[in-house]
Amino acid sequence: MDAAEFRKRGKEMVDYVADYLEKIEKRQVFPDVEPGYLRPLIADCAPQDPESFEDVFKDIEKIIMPGVTHWHSPYFFAYFPAASSFPALLADMLCGGIGCVGFSWAASPACTELETVMLDWLGKMVNLPEEFLAGKDGQGGGVIQGSASEATLIALLAARTKTIRQVQSEKPELTETEIMGRLVAYASDQAHSSVERAALIGAVKIKNVPSDATFSVCGSALRKVLDEDKAAGLIPFFFCATLGTTPCCSFDKLLELGPICNKENIWMHIDAAYAGSAFICPEFRHLLNGVEFADSFNFNPHKWLLVNFDCSAMWVKKRSDLIGAFKLEPLYLQHHHQESGNFHWQIPLGRRFRSLKLWFVLRMYGVKGLQEHIRKHIRLSHQFEHLVLQDERFEICAEVVLGLVCFRLKGSNELNEALLKSINDAKKIHLVPCHLREKFVLRFAICSRTVESTHIKFAWQHISQLATDLLKTWEQNHHQQ
Amino acid sequence: MDAAEFRKRGKEMVDYVADYLEKIEKRQVFPDVEPGYLRPLIADCAPQDPESFEDVFKDIEKIIMPGVTHWHSPYFFAYFPAASSFPALLADMLCGGIGCVGFSWAASPACTELETVMLDWLGKMVNLPEEFLAGKDGQGGGVIQGSASEATLIALLAARTKTIRQVQSEKPELTETEIMGRLVAYASDQAHSSVERAALIGAVKIKNVPSDATFSVCGSALRKVLDEDKAAGLIPFFFCATLGTTPCCSFDKLLELGPICNKENIWMHIDAAYAGSAFICPEFRHLLNGVEFADSFNFNPHKWLLVNFDCSAMWVKKRSDLIGAFKLEPLYLQHHHQESGNFHWQIPLGRRFRSLKLWFVLRMYGVKGLQEHIRKHIRLSHQFEHLVLQDERFEICAEVVLGLVCFRLKGSNELNEALLKSINDAKKIHLVPCHLREKFVLRFAICSRTVESTHIKFAWQHISQLATDLLKTWEQNHHQQ
Repeated sequence: MDAAEFRKRGKEMVDYVADYLEKIEKRQVFPDVEPGYLRPLIADCAPQDPESFEDVFKDIEKIIMPGVTHWHSPYFFAYFPAASSFPALLADMLCGGIGCVGFSWAASPACTELETVMLDWLGKMVNLPEEFLAGKDGQGGGVIQGSASEATLIALLAARTKTIRQVQSEKPELTETEIMGRLVAYASDQAHSSVERAALIGAVKIKNVPSDATFSVCGSALRKVLDEDKAAGLIPFFFCATLGTTPCCSFDKLLELGPICNKENIWMHIDAAYAGSAFICPEFRHLLNGVEFADSFNFNPHKWLLVNFDCSAMWVKKRSDLIGAFKLEPLYLQHHHQESGNFHWQIPLGRRFRSLKLWFVLRMYGVKGLQEHIRKHIRLSHQFEHLVLQDERFEICAEVVLGLVCFRLKGSNELNEALLKSINDAKKIHLVPCHLREKFVLRFAICSRTVESTHIKFAWQHISQLATDLLKTWEQNHHQQ
Repeated sequence: MDAAEFRKRGKEMVDYVADYLEKIEKRQVFPDVEPGYLRPLIADCAPQDPESFEDVFKDIEKIIMPGVTHWHSPYFFAYFPAASSFPALLADMLCGGIGCVGFSWAASPACTELETVMLDWLGKMVNLPEEFLAGKDGQGGGVIQGSASEATLIALLAARTKTIRQVQSEKPELTETEIMGRLVAYASDQAHSSVERAALIGAVKIKNVPSDATFSVCGSALRKVLDEDKAAGLIPFFFCATLGTTPCCSFDKLLELGPICNKENIWMHIDAAYAGSAFICPEFRHLLNGVEFADSFNFNPHKWLLVNFDCSAMWVKKRSDLIGAFKLEPLYLQHHHQESGNFHWQIPLGRRFRSLKLWFVLRMYGVKGLQEHIRKHIRLSHQFEHLVLQDERFEICAEVVLGLVCFRLKGSNELNEALLKSINDAKKIHLVPCHLREKFVLRFAICSRTVESTHIKFAWQHISQLATDLLKTWEQNHHQQ
């Protein structure tokens, strides 16, 4: 394919994508296929000779689309939102065209520099303390990671290195292995599994801190485990606070936790993967109060800020802590490190020109446009909450703060599992569940950029009707038993 | 921006990208900017109100392009190639449009399934042993990672978990910490720094195995360090073999190393990041002989197989080893894991629909088209090699096997540093150096998809002329001293 054909096919693809997103509402939100559906539909091996674009293009609707879960359908209420917007798609086209691999400043200066400046823009939008910004000569700054999981891992590794060095300087009789064996990280029992995974990768212990009745970790809970562990000879070194937990969007109490971490010399990382985008609205910024105590902070514009995946924004107060994590400089690390660029800040060496997406989206929406998007989602979640509250068969299971509503039928877990199954089997909308303590709960997340009040009403009427049908047969079965 | 405007702007962007790539030769391959150039050119913070597409668009040439290193210029001979092709760009547009986040089968069945089948296609193209393929019910299979660094890390972590379990079952008196303290990984002294980094992250020792005169690790070298380390009570558990090292594209001797690793129960991972793409040509496939002894194998279609970054292909013989690495299932890991999908195979939870790029490229080029691309690059590197050899002022520093030529002026390192500086200061072509043992060497890598014989001739004449100029002043200075 030469440039001339690319011009033609590229424009067809633009129209295809525009059509897809414009008419996505007409597609069934969740596919009908069973595991293994795709393999029989395509060849066993790659063709020897080139196939035409037409042949490949027609297979999109034939082979791919039947197996796609349509994350941007206004009937998609599962997980958390995956951001998508037209400016981000345009920026990604440009990113692909330039096709540089920015692993050092020289490998593409614009790639490294735009990222630093965009993270300053974004940091200012959520009103991060000055220390987290790079500015012209700050010690802090931001970097784009692929996911919140990577950000958590990087933070944990930086904290591990820092603590090992500190302990070694205080107690030179301890070996690195001995110190490692005593390190312990902490996170809420509501935290994302990626925190535990980071600890597993980093080969350190991790413990759950019990959350309170509102699914938040408070200072006294952390204090208690810290005291126990220190008494047992362990070395607490890392606490991952969550703002907007995955199950129910609860918030750990930073203002209580931060001072404890600072006093105990524990790295505090804040994972605000979903909720972070909301902090661009002044009325929600208070949820971030206490960030001034943190060492690192992360949220995902690719979730809720209209920047297509992947774009996870991470800031640290001291860049040197991150760089240090990958530069212990033992004998075996004494060659060709690049000092410039952001490559010491992340696991992979290469990086796409992802900051272009931020640049396009922040400029073409403006802060106000993005605030509008966030506010609309939160308005819609409260609309859904009110509909649930008006139906006394149902209960709300956690405070609705942002765009997520956790709800269930009053009754057994089995009943609610059956309700979710009937919702997802009908495939008119798509939800996923969670567990809150022992309860099986349905999560209704406002996801699509184009979701409107009418879709919420439809979703509720549909759920309500399915509940009526279910309760009828459920009661019959119950009477029969 | 609504769908109607996206149709218009998307088509403009297609033309912009086509223009950029068609006329890239006219741009200076390496930018003139100095560190910090970008910040003064843009606002201090994001705009409150939306800006127009036109305003953003005109800033591409004004702000971004002056700071871009043009990786796809036919005058770019630095690092290794970054793949780029029109079919891959089209697939990436579709990937962005669909915008699913495939972290489990249900999150988007097509995303998970196409990836598995494409990795089988690709595995067959390089003639991987059957055990590495997923097929309908194989134990092996492939997955797309973001980079070779991630693949190496995942392999090392899987090996770590496997070994710890094994040692614990044999010697229950040892704690996990004690075992960790004895684990040792190995790689060539020519291996990429990401191997050392993986060990650093995984908190295990790593040792360099000395390469021979051809910069390859042979069996006896590995044997020697293994014996020493075992005698000292260490537990060797991981060896990363490199096919196509970064400095000079040398090849570790798999046929000697593999049987040793198998006998010693050491996980052998093969990092063929750059070279792997060449194995689709039967005449180069012999370089992969011995892969049958490996536990995992990785190469980067995003380097040399015309699939835009990021797309790093990794295969394992036993999927369960990878999954196990992230599922130790201690107390703190007993909740909501998803069993389906590929998410246990990687660091980040989310994944883009990257297999679409492979699907488009493999079909629209066909195996023959891709072989042609590889063969052209290798032909051009030999053309350059011959030009160097005809000039007795120069020497070739390592065997030219694929698309990389390592060369230098006969003489001091200072002289060659000065030559490289004059080449890169002139900015007509772009190269980077390496060290081979104590020698400072220039690396000439065939990179661009559109590079032709004329560009090679131009590059050589240019280098030759700069050498002449340099030697003249160098000798004068030398006489003056």
